[in-house]
Amino acid sequence: MLELYHAEPRANSMKPLICLKEKGLDFVSHYVDLLRFEQHEPWFVKINANGQVPVLVHDGAAITESTVINEYLDEVFPEVPLRPADPLARARMRVWTKYVDEYFCPALSMIGWHIMVRRIAAAVPKHEFEKLLARIPLAEQRIKWATVAGDSFPEEQLADSRRRCGIAIGRMEETLKSGPWLAGDAYSLADVDIYSMVDSIPRLMPEHMNEAKTPRVMDWLARMNARPAVQAARAMPDKTPETLRQFGVEL
Amino acid sequence: MLELYHAEPRANSMKPLICLKEKGLDFVSHYVDLLRFEQHEPWFVKINANGQVPVLVHDGAAITESTVINEYLDEVFPEVPLRPADPLARARMRVWTKYVDEYFCPALSMIGWHIMVRRIAAAVPKHEFEKLLARIPLAEQRIKWATVAGDSFPEEQLADSRRRCGIAIGRMEETLKSGPWLAGDAYSLADVDIYSMVDSIPRLMPEHMNEAKTPRVMDWLARMNARPAVQAARAMPDKTPETLRQFGVEL
Repeated sequence: MLELYHAEPRANSMKPLICLKEKGLDFVSHYVDLLRFEQHEPWFVKINANGQVPVLVHDGAAITESTVINEYLDEVFPEVPLRPADPLARARMRVWTKYVDEYFCPALSMIGWHIMVRRIAAAVPKHEFEKLLARIPLAEQRIKWATVAGDSFPEEQLADSRRRCGIAIGRMEETLKSGPWLAGDAYSLADVDIYSMVDSIPRLMPEHMNEAKTPRVMDWLARMNARPAVQAARAMPDKTPETLRQFGVEL
Repeated sequence: MLELYHAEPRANSMKPLICLKEKGLDFVSHYVDLLRFEQHEPWFVKINANGQVPVLVHDGAAITESTVINEYLDEVFPEVPLRPADPLARARMRVWTKYVDEYFCPALSMIGWHIMVRRIAAAVPKHEFEKLLARIPLAEQRIKWATVAGDSFPEEQLADSRRRCGIAIGRMEETLKSGPWLAGDAYSLADVDIYSMVDSIPRLMPEHMNEAKTPRVMDWLARMNARPAVQAARAMPDKTPETLRQFGVEL
């Protein structure tokens, strides 16, 4: 049996959702509401001591880290392969998924936290927020929440994160000159993992991703959006608007 | 034919060196002297546009990123396997190698740069240093060099990096309670990749790694040091002392 603990179909939660849908695998979906701090509740920290989604549970064994989950799914359920068979193309795929995790996602995450998570931190009563903060397992996550509850990230850091997003999209455009997908001749986890991030860029940073500047990325995005598995992943529940409304936050 | 562009057997350069030696693979070694900025020279940037070592060249095709190189070597030369056959243990291996890249190595790197690279930055004449700085391909690396050429990292950041190193060693100690190796029943790339970082900790931060506090890590380190492949990797050239002497730097 497969179970996935995940939030709305966006960023790291979207990665395994697309992978599962591409492979046509049945799974039990457990929605974890990040804006209600469910990922830090004792029941969830028993599943992942880091207090982070997504987590895949396969026959009772937990696998953490979205990038690792997707490689695991491809190893255990290889019928619809999402990694190139050629080791060289597979290495290029891993350079991309690593780049997403180390460069692109942290930059994008800072911007997302600054725009949205900050509103939640401000909407929670202070004495309640202190208690929520105290139970966050990872020091780095505690600092991130405390930062957006305070003055948020310095403008210099936000500008650098926006710059990095532009670099990442430029790198995609360059790679797509050699073919329709990011790693080798076929659609792969490189496309899945980066799509889960890129999805929001045309809305958040249209200056970095548009028909004039990055036509190949726009074409790739349209092809990604047309995939039934991607559409199925995107149709998974998203409680964010409801939670924001209940916190009295308008975006 | 296998060729490896690498620096002294330490940190990210050590990772593929151990892997190649464990597998008994012949390779052409190309030493790149980082303290002489050879990694930013035009001939090298043609091999890796990021200007970073290590780079594996296999029959003319370049593979970058030490973690990716080691998985590639294990896929193409599986005779001496360094990844668990069990997908769950393999996922645990990848969580470790990812943790090294995203958490442990950046923390350790900051400390190493503060202690050693800073001396080099100070020893190069200013007008020459400006020219060296200008040709660094990655903005992040340019900032890092400029930082150590200036006031170096703030004490607060250095303290946080030392704290992270302690967390990483504590996590190793915890994992080694379940068995002699970090991922599953056998020695794997998790051990290879983390050893390449941990090696310097007893000297740099003995408070985090010692017989009293982390006996299992110390026992694991002794077993790692005893491996012929690890010894062969460590016996590879190290031009650091000579370069430092020529720059007039005493450590």
